[in-house]
Amino acid sequence: MIIAVDAMGGDAGPEMVLSGASLFADRNKNNQEYKNLQFHFYGDAPKIQSLLQGHPSINQISSVFHSDRIITSDTAPASAVRYGRQSQLAMALQSVVEGKANAVLSAGNTGAYMALAKVIFQPLEDLDRPALPAWIPTPKGQSLLLDVGANVTCTARRLAQFAVMGKVLVESQKGVRNPSIGILNIGSEDIKGSSVVQETLQILREIPGLNVHGFVEGHDITRGTTDVVVTDGFTGNVAIKAMEGTALLLKYFMKDAFTKGLPRKILGLFAKPAFKDIQQNSDPRLYNGATFLGLKHVAVKSHGGTDAIGFANAIGATAQALEHHLIENMTESLKTVPICV
Amino acid sequence: MIIAVDAMGGDAGPEMVLSGASLFADRNKNNQEYKNLQFHFYGDAPKIQSLLQGHPSINQISSVFHSDRIITSDTAPASAVRYGRQSQLAMALQSVVEGKANAVLSAGNTGAYMALAKVIFQPLEDLDRPALPAWIPTPKGQSLLLDVGANVTCTARRLAQFAVMGKVLVESQKGVRNPSIGILNIGSEDIKGSSVVQETLQILREIPGLNVHGFVEGHDITRGTTDVVVTDGFTGNVAIKAMEGTALLLKYFMKDAFTKGLPRKILGLFAKPAFKDIQQNSDPRLYNGATFLGLKHVAVKSHGGTDAIGFANAIGATAQALEHHLIENMTESLKTVPICV
Repeated sequence: MIIAVDAMGGDAGPEMVLSGASLFADRNKNNQEYKNLQFHFYGDAPKIQSLLQGHPSINQISSVFHSDRIITSDTAPASAVRYGRQSQLAMALQSVVEGKANAVLSAGNTGAYMALAKVIFQPLEDLDRPALPAWIPTPKGQSLLLDVGANVTCTARRLAQFAVMGKVLVESQKGVRNPSIGILNIGSEDIKGSSVVQETLQILREIPGLNVHGFVEGHDITRGTTDVVVTDGFTGNVAIKAMEGTALLLKYFMKDAFTKGLPRKILGLFAKPAFKDIQQNSDPRLYNGATFLGLKHVAVKSHGGTDAIGFANAIGATAQALEHHLIENMTESLKTVPICV
Repeated sequence: MIIAVDAMGGDAGPEMVLSGASLFADRNKNNQEYKNLQFHFYGDAPKIQSLLQGHPSINQISSVFHSDRIITSDTAPASAVRYGRQSQLAMALQSVVEGKANAVLSAGNTGAYMALAKVIFQPLEDLDRPALPAWIPTPKGQSLLLDVGANVTCTARRLAQFAVMGKVLVESQKGVRNPSIGILNIGSEDIKGSSVVQETLQILREIPGLNVHGFVEGHDITRGTTDVVVTDGFTGNVAIKAMEGTALLLKYFMKDAFTKGLPRKILGLFAKPAFKDIQQNSDPRLYNGATFLGLKHVAVKSHGGTDAIGFANAIGATAQALEHHLIENMTESLKTVPICV
């Protein structure tokens, strides 16, 4: 199993990426599944090589590939595509197409990564646009929300394809059998919403064996009403950021409440382990690593702001996608989506 | 100032409505602005009359109007319109058109209320659809998000009208001078998003004197980046419910963290006043009372699940809309939105 890693992606740079890879290797050193794991790091080779000295646990299983054209968080998707095959990200993607690696992982620029992955990996047959999913914490575990940013407008058939791909991802990453599917809408009654969501429901209900719950509302995402919540990339992107914003606001109110005056501050000190639990439950690092869905190979996106722990989890998500034959299963499942309704 | 109140709306029924009215009257008994305030209650007259006995502070300033046809939370908007002028809500709205009252307030069924208000109050000239706004807590105070449910699809011009109406509401209810306006999008750069949001930005930038911030993202809503955040009713509805769901999830994690084992439970007891502060900061009752924007008269919607305190705040929002000549100001401001771009 060879993972091609964009060593330059992410706000914290290559040291974070290498630390994450080290952490993953240390965690799994007795895991037989990963005994042939290798990393191919793409980016500024001299820099990566020198940093690798500080990570003996991965030094032996790592190769480094140099690129002069580095895609950063500021690179526009159009420029990224114009760089051709010269950038570290394009080289990493190309290596998978050429059979030199099995999957790509990057914490870099989502737009540029998605654009390149589409061009180099190519969408699965009969699928015009790939989707970007996100794992959302719920009291029951996690739900999968997609699309969260790749597709601004969506047809019903595209949403139905997203639903089916989401289902396969939940099966493969979480081991859930026949995950339930909800279509995000402004009400849960069957008569609500736009013609697109109405038609999506109709298409999904025609697919044999699919666990279609029906429409769900915004609050159902964090409630875990369904395993998969499907929506267009505009609504999904706004929803996930609105949820992140609300979590930040509540943490702000909590901080405010536990720092107002000395007695509260002392109480806050005693309550630290409890706050740590809350933080851990909603820790985005736990849910790091989103697979672009609908491409011919595995391309995983790590959160740009993550640290080594989060990046190690994204490596785990990449490895799991390969282990569970995500692409093959997805290809099979997509055949069940009818072309017309 | 006469407010026509739907006494039957809301999950908690007429006793909650009358208690809310009492509370408002008690709070404002020395307020000269409200010395001529009267309530007209519409609904099951014998029931309301008998409950009024328990509320001496409003007994003298209340009149009761009977209807046999009660619109409840289960009444479909189409049925509500079919009842004609016989329902308590239609009677209340009609009384404003006939000049017998100045504004309507209901905690009932949003869909039915909106449908009737549109038919009876009529949209302002040159405005095809009214919008439903919501107040969102931020560290700085509150921001206004609209539309949160009335309009599933929106043209750019309609979004521009919503932005202008939102601005007038923030001015009138919060006293903010020239509130800033953000258009909800999947990125804050000017080049991002659908053609509708692009065109909306273009229209708004052409309006002289308008404080147009540009695009904002989902997390900006609770951050208070702008005073007004404008979006279509589908995205707005999903966003507000996703935010509510996230707040509930974090409260669940908090409860979990402070009940795990005896020491944590004891700590939780000591922390009660701090939790109360957090609860108060994010208390939806503080933000209760959303004015339908774009109608020829004031129609205010209270949250259906509110209690007397929340309902009293919704009465306050109704009174403020009248005091600050909301409709007149909105009519003037809407004239600034160009017809074509």
